[in-house]
Amino acid sequence: MLASAPIGVFDSGVGGLTVLRALRAQLPRESFIYLGDTARLPYGTKSPETVVRYAVQAADALVARGIKALVVACNTAAAAALPTLQARFPGLPLIGVVEPGARAAVAASRSGRIAVLATEGTVLGGAYQQSILRLQPQAQVSAMACQLFVALAEEGWMDGAVADATARRYLAPLLETGEAVRPDVIVLGCTHFPALRTVIAAVAGEGVQIVDSAATTAKAVAEQLAAAGLSAAATSSAPEVRFLATDGLLRFITVGARFLGEDIPAGDVELIDL
Amino acid sequence: MLASAPIGVFDSGVGGLTVLRALRAQLPRESFIYLGDTARLPYGTKSPETVVRYAVQAADALVARGIKALVVACNTAAAAALPTLQARFPGLPLIGVVEPGARAAVAASRSGRIAVLATEGTVLGGAYQQSILRLQPQAQVSAMACQLFVALAEEGWMDGAVADATARRYLAPLLETGEAVRPDVIVLGCTHFPALRTVIAAVAGEGVQIVDSAATTAKAVAEQLAAAGLSAAATSSAPEVRFLATDGLLRFITVGARFLGEDIPAGDVELIDL
Repeated sequence: MLASAPIGVFDSGVGGLTVLRALRAQLPRESFIYLGDTARLPYGTKSPETVVRYAVQAADALVARGIKALVVACNTAAAAALPTLQARFPGLPLIGVVEPGARAAVAASRSGRIAVLATEGTVLGGAYQQSILRLQPQAQVSAMACQLFVALAEEGWMDGAVADATARRYLAPLLETGEAVRPDVIVLGCTHFPALRTVIAAVAGEGVQIVDSAATTAKAVAEQLAAAGLSAAATSSAPEVRFLATDGLLRFITVGARFLGEDIPAGDVELIDL
Repeated sequence: MLASAPIGVFDSGVGGLTVLRALRAQLPRESFIYLGDTARLPYGTKSPETVVRYAVQAADALVARGIKALVVACNTAAAAALPTLQARFPGLPLIGVVEPGARAAVAASRSGRIAVLATEGTVLGGAYQQSILRLQPQAQVSAMACQLFVALAEEGWMDGAVADATARRYLAPLLETGEAVRPDVIVLGCTHFPALRTVIAAVAGEGVQIVDSAATTAKAVAEQLAAAGLSAAATSSAPEVRFLATDGLLRFITVGARFLGEDIPAGDVELIDL
């Protein structure tokens, strides 16, 4: 593998662009290929077997394009498919978003009471809960499936009455508990959810810290690349970012820009079939 | 084709079960095979080419099981794929939900001002608007993509603050117009939306009639079968309903029961790959 090769980033759709955004901020000299499996999103309500199959197809497509590392920027896919991908590509640095998210949560919590908001698939799979408990066996972890946050983020309804009422309804079981058992950290365990961070934080109230895995994932990628001697050289040419999507290029560009925080030039997006 | 053969019903997921429900009420002697492409839902945000490809695969699977007629119980698929399916299966009675929905809307409207609520794909494709205008060239049709209604129906949030605020936000452009130009009919142009009929009707207010395509589709199916001499005999044995899904059987059974209005026995559902 070449240090000048791009880093592959994979998500079910556009949510993982929040991770790409953090990666570009952390690693400004690196090139990236982002693959959004927009034809088959969402992964969050699909069975683990199907998610693993889709993740393998996506990883194969990125590896065929000569990536030097793979970031699984979809919590559902990272939770379900990381062991399979590790076995399939033994030499490839491989980073999921669940482990860094769990690490960020444990670092931020004083009480050890942590709530994970995620998709149905991620919650039922239990990967977040297990990762947190591996790092801090005394932690008290609750996990809640918040499927509607995905649709809200895709619709661009990041604030207003609907976002507020949705956050209130999902968080009610947490907020109704006494202060002595209330979590002090909420983990955004889906890459769509940072789009709703403001409203979630407002509903959760003071004393609850909101963490997501984007920044810690980017740091983990930087560390693994450095350890493997694969960081892009300081003298490397201008880094490139390319995008692959399996359907709906127009939607990818318009909705994706909200998650990436900058425009996605139409010429940089390629339609592929998996 | 045999009159005793089942009728195939196809949807991207569980929404089409509202159509199956109407079909069973209208045609109590018929057997049905329902196929929900749950692995690849939703169709509403996918490109027409992809939706056509998926619809052909689903129709092939049902035709291979010996159906005598095919109901495309997904507005997005009916809007995008009906001509392709008609060309592929020239002898097969084929009924989509768009045309019957348009007919119901035109029949119900006094003013000719009709609003269509549908998925992004259905709205952009324009099939509803065109069907209504073919039936009533003077009609004034507005169409709105209401993607979040899909997620609300799937989550089972049919009432409460979130459903109410969502309906208010989507319907605001309609309600803010003067009474002289306000539509008197709202068509639920997605098979998920009947689950939210009560809240949509409440927000729309009196004087606005809500129509969906389920009952008119069932009537159209009955007519086509009778015309083709394919209605099940009065003496036929007990009708059967079987279900096929491409992923997530547990979710299909639990969420699906809400749309079908009755329990779905786990033994009646088969997992298939398309």
